[in-house]
Amino acid sequence: MTGSTPASFTADDYRARLDRATRSAADAGLAGLLVAPGPDLVWLTGYAPTAATERLTLLVLAAGREPVLVVPALEAPDAGKAVGAPALTFRDWTDGEDPHALTAALLDGPGRLGVSDNAWALHLLGLQRALPATAFASLTEALPMLRAVKDAAELELLAAAGAAADATFEDVRALPFRGRRESELAADLDRLLRAHGHAVVDFTIVASGPNGANPHHEVGDRVIEDGDMVVLDFGGLLGGYGSDTSRTVHVGEPTQEERRVHDLVREAQEAGFQAVRPGVACQEIDRAARAVIEDAGYGRYFIHRTGHGIGVTTHEPPYMIEGEEQPLVPGMCFSVEPGIYLPGRFGVRIEDIVTVTEEGGRRLNDTVRELVTVD
Amino acid sequence: MTGSTPASFTADDYRARLDRATRSAADAGLAGLLVAPGPDLVWLTGYAPTAATERLTLLVLAAGREPVLVVPALEAPDAGKAVGAPALTFRDWTDGEDPHALTAALLDGPGRLGVSDNAWALHLLGLQRALPATAFASLTEALPMLRAVKDAAELELLAAAGAAADATFEDVRALPFRGRRESELAADLDRLLRAHGHAVVDFTIVASGPNGANPHHEVGDRVIEDGDMVVLDFGGLLGGYGSDTSRTVHVGEPTQEERRVHDLVREAQEAGFQAVRPGVACQEIDRAARAVIEDAGYGRYFIHRTGHGIGVTTHEPPYMIEGEEQPLVPGMCFSVEPGIYLPGRFGVRIEDIVTVTEEGGRRLNDTVRELVTVD
Repeated sequence: MTGSTPASFTADDYRARLDRATRSAADAGLAGLLVAPGPDLVWLTGYAPTAATERLTLLVLAAGREPVLVVPALEAPDAGKAVGAPALTFRDWTDGEDPHALTAALLDGPGRLGVSDNAWALHLLGLQRALPATAFASLTEALPMLRAVKDAAELELLAAAGAAADATFEDVRALPFRGRRESELAADLDRLLRAHGHAVVDFTIVASGPNGANPHHEVGDRVIEDGDMVVLDFGGLLGGYGSDTSRTVHVGEPTQEERRVHDLVREAQEAGFQAVRPGVACQEIDRAARAVIEDAGYGRYFIHRTGHGIGVTTHEPPYMIEGEEQPLVPGMCFSVEPGIYLPGRFGVRIEDIVTVTEEGGRRLNDTVRELVTVD
Repeated sequence: MTGSTPASFTADDYRARLDRATRSAADAGLAGLLVAPGPDLVWLTGYAPTAATERLTLLVLAAGREPVLVVPALEAPDAGKAVGAPALTFRDWTDGEDPHALTAALLDGPGRLGVSDNAWALHLLGLQRALPATAFASLTEALPMLRAVKDAAELELLAAAGAAADATFEDVRALPFRGRRESELAADLDRLLRAHGHAVVDFTIVASGPNGANPHHEVGDRVIEDGDMVVLDFGGLLGGYGSDTSRTVHVGEPTQEERRVHDLVREAQEAGFQAVRPGVACQEIDRAARAVIEDAGYGRYFIHRTGHGIGVTTHEPPYMIEGEEQPLVPGMCFSVEPGIYLPGRFGVRIEDIVTVTEEGGRRLNDTVRELVTVD
């Protein structure tokens, strides 16, 4: 998360999102939404406190009421500067007051409230005590698609972030790999993402040789050698919206097996992409990609879901995973990123961000997907 | 939070902390502790996942059982590299499993569990569903002093962080203020904190003239002028431990009133410091500092508590606030930071980190507390 508000949105944009969220909550049978600092609050108001802390900041949305931001008095002046602030009523509180009790007073009796996934347990427990007749559900459970469908301005920002990540890949593949540490390449990725406009870098995975077989290996001091496969997976925020792309490159000439595994992941990624169209369940994207890898006998080496949503965060619903029956809707954006991980040997992952259009999928990353060799 | 583990601690240090935490929990009548990624987990294991996410990572401490780290399979290899890992049993899980149900299986029936303040609501709600007969309490409520008493190695790290913050102040007071933007001075503070060894910079408050009257004003584009009071409040993490100090400087010659207000805050800060000794309730530190300001008629302009604990975070229990009856114990570390905020005019805050010794308080910041003039 960054504190910067994308300049692309106006107070009216935030007001429209607040209205839509309140209506969606009512449609989902919720009495209201409790929105904590983090991506939900940024998306609804443009406000990002410097840090989430033990002092409660909470946006309260209840049907038939104006949105209220409960905020520590110390932070009210900064909150008032948020682009979305004109749509909010402020209820500030000072050290010594009980912020959970005063939040409870903004809500009507029993019912079910949706609460941001990342709200602190400290605050949820305080609210549960202040509202003993109320049931609580996480937004992922109660309203998972709140931020999932992006509007035209959001899609532009996601496309710009994707283009910057692609430019970063083009730059990094021209750099020397052989004899350098993973950590040096990761620093290059960080520098290049920023040079191409990223304000925040969330991850710069450089997983060479056997490290590539750990999908979440970040980076280490291993020196990259001739003959290594190297998984690159990097992204962050540009203009408040996320990028996330992966390519796997090879140092020098690949073996036949390395080519075959890479081709397989590329075909799986293509199959996942081709499955994207409105109305298709998220799990079908996972199934389409996974089928290619399973049919080739590598199913047990594809050890994660096929994708995740992206927006004001680099990881959010919808998830492309078996069991997720949510149908795709135009404007949704998510990764398609199958991989094969051969323990002790190497890994391959190829990842693009894809958005759903009426006609099918549209990629927001488009660098070469064939196996690239580097020096 | 940073991912870096202070090299100062060994697997045995973490094992001792885990044992102590499990015993403290039992003494407090808790059936166990659920520790989320963040400062509690870093302190107990040295493990800091790259990000807290929707995938559950949770340390489960229960009386009479070995500590278990529930961790996504993708992240298990990285978790295994944490310095504290040898003291842990790993229970990894893959996408599709229910991590809350498998956590519940590690715990015995009913009772009361302490949970990290910053655990995600998403996870607490999942655990509440999986453990319907169990009561949950935040660690701030159930075991607030878990990390409050620092050992000798921790005190050394806090002292080193404090010395680096002091060196930063010495450097910054020599820089030109007049005619420069707050944001430029903030960038200087960031650069200097890093130059003096900080790996993470948490805040660089530069609040000039009327901005100083907002205690949480971070930084803006205001150009600093002759005659401004400027509140500087900065800190971060060095070697995994926090710094946090404030000084208020004046551009050119201060007025009599500015001197008087500054002197008053200095006397209040000294009174708070002098009140520090083992056995004294935290609220007495607040009372001692506040009395000086109230007696001088400025009570309504001191609009926050007097201090907060510091350790692997820059903000944690114990809090120096009216109503906090926790007695001080040697090894506790916290800020003493009274302030006076005159709306529309200026603010003054003076802050040192103080640790409790058998003989009284010992300051970990020791730059000049008299009003400094800058150019």
